[in-house]
Amino acid sequence: MQIFMSKKFVVIVAGGSGSRMKSDVPKQFLLLDGKPVLAHTLSRFEQTLSDAEIILVLPETQVGFWRKLCEIHGVTTPHQVVNGGATRFQSVKNALDYLEGEKGLVAVHDGVRPFVPAGVIREAFETAEITGSAVVAVALKDSVRRLEAGGSVPADRSQFRLVQTPQVFGLELLQQAYAQQESPLFTDDASVYEASGRKVSLVEGSYGNIKITTPEDLWFGEAILKKEKG
Amino acid sequence: MQIFMSKKFVVIVAGGSGSRMKSDVPKQFLLLDGKPVLAHTLSRFEQTLSDAEIILVLPETQVGFWRKLCEIHGVTTPHQVVNGGATRFQSVKNALDYLEGEKGLVAVHDGVRPFVPAGVIREAFETAEITGSAVVAVALKDSVRRLEAGGSVPADRSQFRLVQTPQVFGLELLQQAYAQQESPLFTDDASVYEASGRKVSLVEGSYGNIKITTPEDLWFGEAILKKEKG
Repeated sequence: MQIFMSKKFVVIVAGGSGSRMKSDVPKQFLLLDGKPVLAHTLSRFEQTLSDAEIILVLPETQVGFWRKLCEIHGVTTPHQVVNGGATRFQSVKNALDYLEGEKGLVAVHDGVRPFVPAGVIREAFETAEITGSAVVAVALKDSVRRLEAGGSVPADRSQFRLVQTPQVFGLELLQQAYAQQESPLFTDDASVYEASGRKVSLVEGSYGNIKITTPEDLWFGEAILKKEKG
Repeated sequence: MQIFMSKKFVVIVAGGSGSRMKSDVPKQFLLLDGKPVLAHTLSRFEQTLSDAEIILVLPETQVGFWRKLCEIHGVTTPHQVVNGGATRFQSVKNALDYLEGEKGLVAVHDGVRPFVPAGVIREAFETAEITGSAVVAVALKDSVRRLEAGGSVPADRSQFRLVQTPQVFGLELLQQAYAQQESPLFTDDASVYEASGRKVSLVEGSYGNIKITTPEDLWFGEAILKKEKG
Protein backbone atom coordinates (compact mmCIF):
# COMPACT_ATOMS: atom_id res chain seq x y z
CA MET A 1 0.00 0.00 0.00
CA GLN A 2 1.40 3.38 -0.94
CA ILE A 3 0.28 5.81 1.72
CA PHE A 4 1.77 9.01 0.29
CA MET A 5 0.84 9.94 -3.23
CA SER A 6 2.60 13.28 -3.54
CA LYS A 7 5.94 13.42 -5.28
CA LYS A 8 8.70 14.35 -2.85
CA PHE A 9 11.46 16.89 -3.30
CA VAL A 10 14.24 17.68 -0.87
CA VAL A 11 16.11 20.99 -1.08
CA ILE A 12 19.36 20.86 0.90
CA VAL A 13 20.74 24.34 1.52
CA ALA A 14 24.46 24.63 2.16
CA GLY A 15 25.77 28.13 1.93
CA GLY A 16 27.99 28.44 4.96
CA SER A 17 31.53 29.76 5.11
CA GLY A 18 34.06 28.55 7.70
CA SER A 19 34.06 31.60 9.98
CA ARG A 20 32.31 30.22 13.07
CA MET A 21 34.34 27.01 12.95
CA LYS A 22 37.69 28.84 13.14
CA SER A 23 38.36 26.91 9.94
CA ASP A 24 38.96 27.88 6.32
CA VAL A 25 36.82 25.00 5.14
CA PRO A 26 33.07 25.72 4.96
CA LYS A 27 31.44 23.57 7.63
CA GLN A 28 29.34 21.56 5.17
CA PHE A 29 32.61 20.12 3.81
CA LEU A 30 34.26 19.24 7.12
CA LEU A 31 34.91 15.56 7.59
CA LEU A 32 32.78 13.60 10.00
CA ASP A 33 33.85 9.99 10.34
CA GLY A 34 35.92 10.46 7.18
CA LYS A 35 33.08 11.81 5.01
CA PRO A 36 31.95 15.41 4.35
CA VAL A 37 29.09 16.58 6.60
CA LEU A 38 27.03 17.22 3.48
CA ALA A 39 27.49 13.63 2.27
CA HIS A 40 25.99 12.39 5.56
CA THR A 41 23.02 14.72 5.13
CA LEU A 42 22.34 13.60 1.55
CA SER A 43 22.69 9.96 2.50
CA ARG A 44 20.20 10.35 5.38
CA PHE A 45 17.50 11.57 3.00
CA GLU A 46 18.35 8.98 0.34
CA GLN A 47 18.00 6.18 2.89
CA THR A 48 14.74 7.52 4.30
CA LEU A 49 12.99 8.56 1.07
CA SER A 50 14.24 6.41 -1.77
CA ASP A 51 11.78 8.03 -4.18
CA ALA A 52 12.62 11.67 -3.44
CA GLU A 53 14.41 14.01 -5.82
CA ILE A 54 17.24 15.79 -4.02
CA ILE A 55 18.37 19.30 -4.97
CA LEU A 56 21.54 20.64 -3.37
CA VAL A 57 21.99 24.41 -3.29
CA LEU A 58 25.65 25.45 -3.10
CA PRO A 59 27.48 28.74 -3.65
CA GLU A 60 28.68 28.71 -7.26
CA THR A 61 32.28 29.06 -6.10
CA GLN A 62 32.02 25.81 -4.10
CA VAL A 63 30.47 23.56 -6.76
CA GLY A 64 33.77 22.45 -8.25
CA PHE A 65 35.20 21.63 -4.83
CA TRP A 66 32.08 19.66 -3.94
CA ARG A 67 32.28 17.57 -7.14
CA LYS A 68 35.88 16.78 -6.30
CA LEU A 69 34.87 15.75 -2.76
CA CYS A 70 32.15 13.51 -4.20
CA GLU A 71 34.76 11.73 -6.33
CA ILE A 72 37.29 11.36 -3.50
CA HIS A 73 34.76 10.15 -0.93
CA GLY A 74 32.60 8.12 -3.28
CA VAL A 75 29.39 10.06 -2.69
CA THR A 76 26.75 8.18 -4.65
CA THR A 77 23.50 9.85 -3.52
CA PRO A 78 21.86 11.12 -6.74
CA HIS A 79 21.35 14.88 -6.49
CA GLN A 80 21.03 17.95 -8.69
CA VAL A 81 23.25 20.92 -7.84
CA VAL A 82 21.71 24.40 -8.11
CA ASN A 83 23.71 27.61 -7.60
CA GLY A 84 23.02 29.50 -4.39
CA GLY A 85 22.21 33.19 -4.12
CA ALA A 86 23.50 36.01 -1.97
CA THR A 87 21.18 35.10 0.93
CA ARG A 88 19.50 31.94 2.19
CA PHE A 89 16.20 33.28 0.80
CA GLN A 90 17.73 33.65 -2.66
CA SER A 91 19.29 30.20 -2.45
CA VAL A 92 15.98 28.49 -1.63
CA LYS A 93 14.27 30.56 -4.30
CA ASN A 94 16.78 29.34 -6.90
CA ALA A 95 15.94 25.73 -6.01
CA LEU A 96 12.20 26.43 -6.15
CA ASP A 97 12.63 28.11 -9.55
CA TYR A 98 14.47 25.00 -10.72
CA LEU A 99 11.40 22.97 -9.67
CA GLU A 100 9.04 25.26 -11.64
CA GLY A 101 6.17 23.22 -13.11
CA GLU A 102 6.61 20.27 -10.70
CA LYS A 103 3.93 19.23 -8.21
CA GLY A 104 4.30 17.60 -4.81
CA LEU A 105 5.79 18.23 -1.39
CA VAL A 106 9.14 19.90 -0.83
CA ALA A 107 11.34 19.65 2.26
CA VAL A 108 13.88 22.39 2.87
CA HIS A 109 16.74 21.20 5.06
CA ASP A 110 19.99 22.65 6.40
CA GLY A 111 22.99 20.96 4.79
CA VAL A 112 24.76 21.01 8.17
CA ARG A 113 22.07 18.98 9.99
CA PRO A 114 23.34 15.50 9.11
CA PHE A 115 21.70 13.62 12.00
CA VAL A 116 18.00 14.21 11.33
CA PRO A 117 16.32 10.91 12.26
CA ALA A 118 14.41 9.00 9.58
CA GLY A 119 11.27 9.10 11.76
CA VAL A 120 11.35 12.88 11.90
CA ILE A 121 11.68 13.17 8.12
CA ARG A 122 8.78 10.75 7.60
CA GLU A 123 6.53 12.47 10.12
CA ALA A 124 7.23 15.86 8.57
CA PHE A 125 6.15 14.61 5.13
CA GLU A 126 3.10 12.86 6.58
CA THR A 127 1.97 16.02 8.37
CA ALA A 128 2.58 18.26 5.37
CA GLU A 129 0.57 15.84 3.23
CA ILE A 130 -2.42 16.50 5.49
CA THR A 131 -2.02 20.15 6.55
CA GLY A 132 0.11 21.64 3.77
CA SER A 133 3.12 22.29 5.99
CA ALA A 134 5.31 20.77 8.70
CA VAL A 135 7.98 22.56 10.68
CA VAL A 136 10.21 20.41 12.86
CA ALA A 137 10.77 21.90 16.32
CA VAL A 138 11.74 20.86 19.85
CA ALA A 139 10.89 22.09 23.35
CA LEU A 140 13.51 24.05 25.29
CA LYS A 141 15.49 22.07 27.86
CA ASP A 142 16.80 25.16 29.64
CA SER A 143 15.09 28.10 31.29
CA VAL A 144 14.75 31.08 29.01
CA ARG A 145 14.95 34.84 29.64
CA ARG A 146 13.76 37.72 27.50
CA LEU A 147 16.06 40.74 27.16
CA GLU A 148 14.53 44.15 27.68
CA ALA A 149 15.77 47.69 28.19
CA GLY A 150 18.03 47.69 31.25
CA GLY A 151 18.01 43.96 31.89
CA SER A 152 16.14 40.72 31.34
CA VAL A 153 13.09 38.91 32.68
CA PRO A 154 12.19 35.22 32.94
CA ALA A 155 10.04 33.88 30.12
CA ASP A 156 7.86 30.75 30.24
CA ARG A 157 9.88 28.15 28.35
CA SER A 158 6.83 25.95 27.80
CA GLN A 159 5.51 28.62 25.41
CA PHE A 160 8.46 28.30 23.04
CA ARG A 161 9.86 25.84 20.52
CA LEU A 162 13.30 25.81 18.92
CA VAL A 163 12.94 25.46 15.18
CA GLN A 164 14.93 22.86 13.24
CA THR A 165 14.70 21.51 9.73
CA PRO A 166 13.35 19.85 7.62
CA GLN A 167 10.44 22.18 6.97
CA VAL A 168 8.05 20.60 4.49
CA PHE A 169 5.47 22.41 2.35
CA GLY A 170 3.23 21.95 -0.64
CA LEU A 171 5.65 22.83 -3.45
CA GLU A 172 3.36 25.25 -5.25
CA LEU A 173 2.39 26.98 -1.99
CA LEU A 174 6.05 27.49 -1.10
CA GLN A 175 6.83 28.72 -4.61
CA GLN A 176 4.02 31.28 -4.25
CA ALA A 177 5.41 32.33 -0.86
CA TYR A 178 8.88 32.79 -2.32
CA ALA A 179 7.45 35.10 -4.98
CA GLN A 180 7.29 37.74 -2.22
CA GLN A 181 9.90 40.44 -1.77
CA GLU A 182 12.66 39.28 0.59
CA SER A 183 12.38 40.68 4.13
CA PRO A 184 14.73 40.73 7.13
CA LEU A 185 11.89 39.08 9.06
CA PHE A 186 12.37 35.89 7.04
CA THR A 187 14.52 33.73 9.32
CA ASP A 188 13.47 30.38 7.87
CA ASP A 189 11.06 28.90 5.32
CA ALA A 190 8.21 28.85 7.82
CA SER A 191 8.36 32.63 8.22
CA VAL A 192 8.32 33.10 4.42
CA TYR A 193 5.38 30.71 4.11
CA GLU A 194 3.45 32.45 6.89
CA ALA A 195 4.04 35.88 5.39
CA SER A 196 2.05 34.62 2.41
CA GLY A 197 -0.95 34.31 4.73
CA ARG A 198 -0.77 30.64 5.69
CA LYS A 199 -0.26 28.84 8.99
CA VAL A 200 2.35 26.18 9.72
CA SER A 201 2.03 22.90 11.62
CA LEU A 202 4.71 21.88 14.10
CA VAL A 203 6.19 18.39 14.20
CA GLU A 204 8.31 17.01 17.05
CA GLY A 205 12.01 17.14 16.21
CA SER A 206 14.99 15.56 17.93
CA TYR A 207 17.71 16.91 20.23
CA GLY A 208 20.18 14.91 18.17
CA ASN A 209 19.21 16.84 15.02
CA ILE A 210 21.90 19.44 15.61
CA LYS A 211 23.24 22.05 13.26
CA ILE A 212 27.01 21.78 12.89
CA THR A 213 28.11 25.34 13.58
CA THR A 214 30.85 25.15 16.20
CA PRO A 215 33.79 22.78 16.80
CA GLU A 216 31.89 21.25 19.75
CA ASP A 217 29.12 20.25 17.35
CA LEU A 218 31.56 18.31 15.22
CA TRP A 219 32.78 16.35 18.25
CA PHE A 220 29.18 15.68 19.17
CA GLY A 221 28.59 14.47 15.63
CA GLU A 222 31.47 12.03 15.80
CA ALA A 223 30.11 10.68 19.07
CA ILE A 224 26.61 10.24 17.57
CA LEU A 225 27.93 8.36 14.54
CA LYS A 226 30.05 6.10 16.73
CA LYS A 227 27.00 5.19 18.83
CA GLU A 228 24.80 4.64 15.78
CA LYS A 229 27.34 2.16 14.44
CA GLY A 230 27.32 0.41 17.81
CA MET B 1 47.31 40.80 44.44
CA GLN B 2 44.04 39.29 45.57
CA ILE B 3 41.31 40.64 43.35
CA PHE B 4 38.29 39.01 44.99
CA MET B 5 37.81 39.51 48.67
CA SER B 6 34.51 37.72 49.16
CA LYS B 7 34.54 34.19 50.45
CA LYS B 8 33.24 31.77 47.82
CA PHE B 9 30.69 29.00 48.21
CA VAL B 10 29.52 26.58 45.55
CA VAL B 11 26.23 24.72 45.94
CA ILE B 12 26.02 21.77 43.54
CA VAL B 13 22.45 20.52 43.20
CA ALA B 14 22.00 16.91 42.11
CA GLY B 15 18.51 15.63 42.62
CA GLY B 16 17.76 13.83 39.40
CA SER B 17 16.36 10.38 38.95
CA GLY B 18 17.15 8.24 35.90
CA SER B 19 13.84 8.57 34.07
CA ARG B 20 14.85 10.73 31.09
CA MET B 21 17.98 8.66 30.50
CA LYS B 22 16.07 5.38 30.11
CA SER B 23 18.37 4.26 32.91
CA ASP B 24 17.87 3.16 36.50
CA VAL B 25 20.94 5.09 37.58
CA PRO B 26 20.32 8.79 38.34
CA LYS B 27 22.16 10.75 35.66
CA GLN B 28 24.53 12.47 38.09
CA PHE B 29 26.05 9.03 38.80
CA LEU B 30 26.44 7.84 35.22
CA LEU B 31 30.02 7.24 34.18
CA LEU B 32 31.71 9.66 31.84
CA ASP B 33 35.22 8.62 30.87
CA GLY B 34 35.11 6.14 33.78
CA LYS B 35 34.11 8.67 36.46
CA PRO B 36 30.66 9.73 37.74
CA VAL B 37 29.29 12.87 36.06
CA LEU B 38 29.11 14.49 39.49
CA ALA B 39 32.80 13.85 40.15
CA HIS B 40 33.65 15.77 36.97
CA THR B 41 31.47 18.68 38.09
CA LEU B 42 33.06 18.85 41.56
CA SER B 43 36.53 18.62 40.09
CA ARG B 44 35.83 21.45 37.66
CA PHE B 45 35.00 23.82 40.52
CA GLU B 46 37.88 22.61 42.67
CA GLN B 47 40.34 23.27 39.84
CA THR B 48 38.92 26.71 39.08
CA LEU B 49 38.34 28.01 42.62
CA SER B 50 40.82 26.37 44.97
CA ASP B 51 39.58 28.50 47.87
CA ALA B 52 35.86 27.80 47.50
CA GLU B 53 33.80 25.72 49.92
CA ILE B 54 31.73 23.16 48.01
CA ILE B 55 28.35 21.95 49.24
CA LEU B 56 26.75 19.03 47.42
CA VAL B 57 22.98 18.62 47.77
CA LEU B 58 21.83 15.03 47.22
CA PRO B 59 18.58 13.16 47.95
CA GLU B 60 19.07 11.48 51.34
CA THR B 61 18.48 8.07 49.74
CA GLN B 62 21.45 8.59 47.40
CA VAL B 63 24.04 9.74 49.92
CA GLY B 64 25.27 6.25 50.78
CA PHE B 65 25.60 5.30 47.14
CA TRP B 66 27.51 8.50 46.43
CA ARG B 67 29.99 7.85 49.26
CA LYS B 68 30.58 4.39 47.85
CA LEU B 69 31.17 5.86 44.37
CA CYS B 70 33.66 8.34 45.85
CA GLU B 71 35.61 5.46 47.35
CA ILE B 72 35.55 3.35 44.21
CA HIS B 73 36.48 6.18 41.86
CA GLY B 74 38.87 7.99 44.19
CA VAL B 75 36.94 11.26 44.30
CA THR B 76 39.14 13.59 46.35
CA THR B 77 37.41 16.98 45.89
CA PRO B 78 36.60 18.18 49.42
CA HIS B 79 32.86 18.75 49.76
CA GLN B 80 30.11 18.79 52.36
CA VAL B 81 26.99 16.72 51.61
CA VAL B 82 23.61 18.24 52.53
CA ASN B 83 20.32 16.35 52.18
CA GLY B 84 18.06 17.49 49.38
CA GLY B 85 14.38 18.37 49.71
CA ALA B 86 11.25 17.42 47.80
CA THR B 87 11.86 20.10 45.15
CA ARG B 88 14.87 21.91 43.71
CA PHE B 89 13.80 24.99 45.70
CA GLN B 90 13.84 23.02 48.95
CA SER B 91 17.20 21.47 48.07
CA VAL B 92 18.87 24.84 47.47
CA LYS B 93 17.19 26.18 50.63
CA ASN B 94 18.69 23.34 52.66
CA ALA B 95 22.16 24.27 51.43
CA LEU B 96 21.59 27.95 52.16
CA ASP B 97 20.35 27.07 55.66
CA TYR B 98 23.53 25.06 56.16
CA LEU B 99 25.48 28.24 55.28
CA GLU B 100 23.53 30.34 57.81
CA GLY B 101 25.81 32.97 59.35
CA GLU B 102 28.42 32.83 56.57
CA LYS B 103 29.19 35.82 54.36
CA GLY B 104 30.38 35.89 50.74
CA LEU B 105 29.26 34.88 47.26
CA VAL B 106 27.45 31.66 46.49
CA ALA B 107 27.26 29.90 43.13
CA VAL B 108 24.40 27.49 42.56
CA HIS B 109 25.21 24.94 39.85
CA ASP B 110 23.52 21.91 38.29
CA GLY B 111 25.33 18.70 39.25
CA VAL B 112 24.79 17.42 35.70
CA ARG B 113 26.64 20.30 33.99
CA PRO B 114 30.17 18.89 34.25
CA PHE B 115 31.70 20.91 31.38
CA VAL B 116 31.31 24.48 32.60
CA PRO B 117 34.50 26.25 31.47
CA ALA B 118 36.78 27.77 34.11
CA GLY B 119 36.50 31.17 32.42
CA VAL B 120 32.71 31.14 32.75
CA ILE B 121 32.92 30.30 36.47
CA ARG B 122 35.43 33.08 37.05
CA GLU B 123 33.47 35.67 35.10
CA ALA B 124 30.29 34.80 36.97
CA PHE B 125 32.00 35.38 40.33
CA GLU B 126 33.63 38.60 39.08
CA THR B 127 30.31 39.98 37.90
CA ALA B 128 28.45 38.98 41.06
CA GLU B 129 31.17 40.68 43.12
CA ILE B 130 30.30 43.94 41.38
CA THR B 131 26.55 43.73 40.75
CA GLY B 132 25.36 41.25 43.39
CA SER B 133 24.37 38.56 40.91
CA ALA B 134 25.45 36.77 37.75
CA VAL B 135 23.36 34.39 35.69
CA VAL B 136 25.15 32.45 32.97
CA ALA B 137 23.22 32.37 29.68
CA VAL B 138 23.76 31.88 25.94
CA ALA B 139 22.13 33.21 22.79
CA LEU B 140 19.85 30.88 20.79
CA LYS B 141 21.41 29.25 17.74
CA ASP B 142 18.09 28.20 16.23
CA SER B 143 15.01 30.15 15.22
CA VAL B 144 12.36 30.19 17.91
CA ARG B 145 8.55 30.12 17.77
CA ARG B 146 6.00 31.04 20.41
CA LEU B 147 3.01 28.72 20.86
CA GLU B 148 -0.41 30.34 21.01
CA ALA B 149 -4.00 29.22 20.83
CA GLY B 150 -4.46 27.36 17.55
CA GLY B 151 -0.86 27.45 16.42
CA SER B 152 2.47 29.20 16.74
CA VAL B 153 4.15 32.40 15.57
CA PRO B 154 7.80 33.29 14.95
CA ALA B 155 9.56 35.06 17.82
CA ASP B 156 12.70 37.18 17.57
CA ARG B 157 15.46 34.93 18.83
CA SER B 158 17.81 37.86 19.47
CA GLN B 159 15.51 38.87 22.35
CA PHE B 160 16.06 35.62 24.25
CA ARG B 161 18.80 33.89 26.19
CA LEU B 162 18.95 30.25 27.31
CA VAL B 163 19.78 30.11 30.99
CA GLN B 164 22.55 27.85 32.27
CA THR B 165 24.36 27.59 35.58
CA PRO B 166 26.30 28.63 37.62
CA GLN B 167 24.15 31.43 38.94
CA VAL B 168 26.10 33.47 41.50
CA PHE B 169 24.64 35.75 44.19
CA GLY B 170 25.54 37.56 47.36
CA LEU B 171 24.98 34.80 49.93
CA GLU B 172 22.86 36.84 52.30
CA LEU B 173 20.76 38.26 49.46
CA LEU B 174 20.05 34.75 48.17
CA GLN B 175 19.25 33.51 51.68
CA GLN B 176 16.75 36.36 52.03
CA ALA B 177 15.23 35.46 48.65
CA TYR B 178 14.87 31.82 49.69
CA ALA B 179 12.97 32.90 52.81
CA GLN B 180 10.00 33.46 50.48
CA GLN B 181 7.19 30.96 50.03
CA GLU B 182 7.96 28.53 47.19
CA SER B 183 6.14 29.29 43.94
CA PRO B 184 5.63 27.37 40.69
CA LEU B 185 7.10 30.44 38.94
CA PHE B 186 10.50 29.66 40.44
CA THR B 187 12.30 27.82 37.63
CA ASP B 188 15.83 28.63 38.75
CA ASP B 189 17.69 30.65 41.36
CA ALA B 190 17.50 33.83 39.30
CA SER B 191 13.70 33.76 39.39
CA VAL B 192 13.71 33.29 43.19
CA TYR B 193 16.21 36.14 43.56
CA GLU B 194 14.16 38.44 41.32
CA ALA B 195 10.95 37.68 43.18
CA SER B 196 12.63 39.25 46.21
CA GLY B 197 12.70 42.52 44.27
CA ARG B 198 16.23 42.46 42.84
CA LYS B 199 17.57 42.38 39.27
CA VAL B 200 20.03 39.88 37.88
CA SER B 201 23.04 40.43 35.61
CA LEU B 202 23.67 38.09 32.68
CA VAL B 203 27.08 36.61 31.92
CA GLU B 204 28.04 34.89 28.64
CA GLY B 205 27.92 31.10 29.00
CA SER B 206 29.19 28.38 26.70
CA TYR B 207 27.50 26.01 24.25
CA GLY B 208 29.67 23.25 25.68
CA ASN B 209 28.19 23.81 29.16
CA ILE B 210 25.48 21.25 28.56
CA LYS B 211 23.15 19.61 31.04
CA ILE B 212 23.37 15.82 30.86
CA THR B 213 19.72 14.86 30.50
CA THR B 214 19.51 12.51 27.53
CA PRO B 215 21.70 9.65 26.22
CA GLU B 216 22.91 11.93 23.38
CA ASP B 217 24.27 14.35 25.97
CA LEU B 218 26.41 11.61 27.48
CA TRP B 219 27.91 10.80 24.08
CA PHE B 220 28.55 14.50 23.58
CA GLY B 221 30.22 14.59 26.98
CA GLU B 222 32.55 11.74 26.11
CA ALA B 223 33.51 13.53 22.90
CA ILE B 224 34.22 16.78 24.79
CA LEU B 225 36.43 15.04 27.34
CA LYS B 226 38.33 13.23 24.61
CA LYS B 227 39.05 16.52 22.84
CA GLU B 228 40.05 18.29 26.06
CA LYS B 229 42.61 15.59 26.72
CA GLY B 230 43.94 16.09 23.17
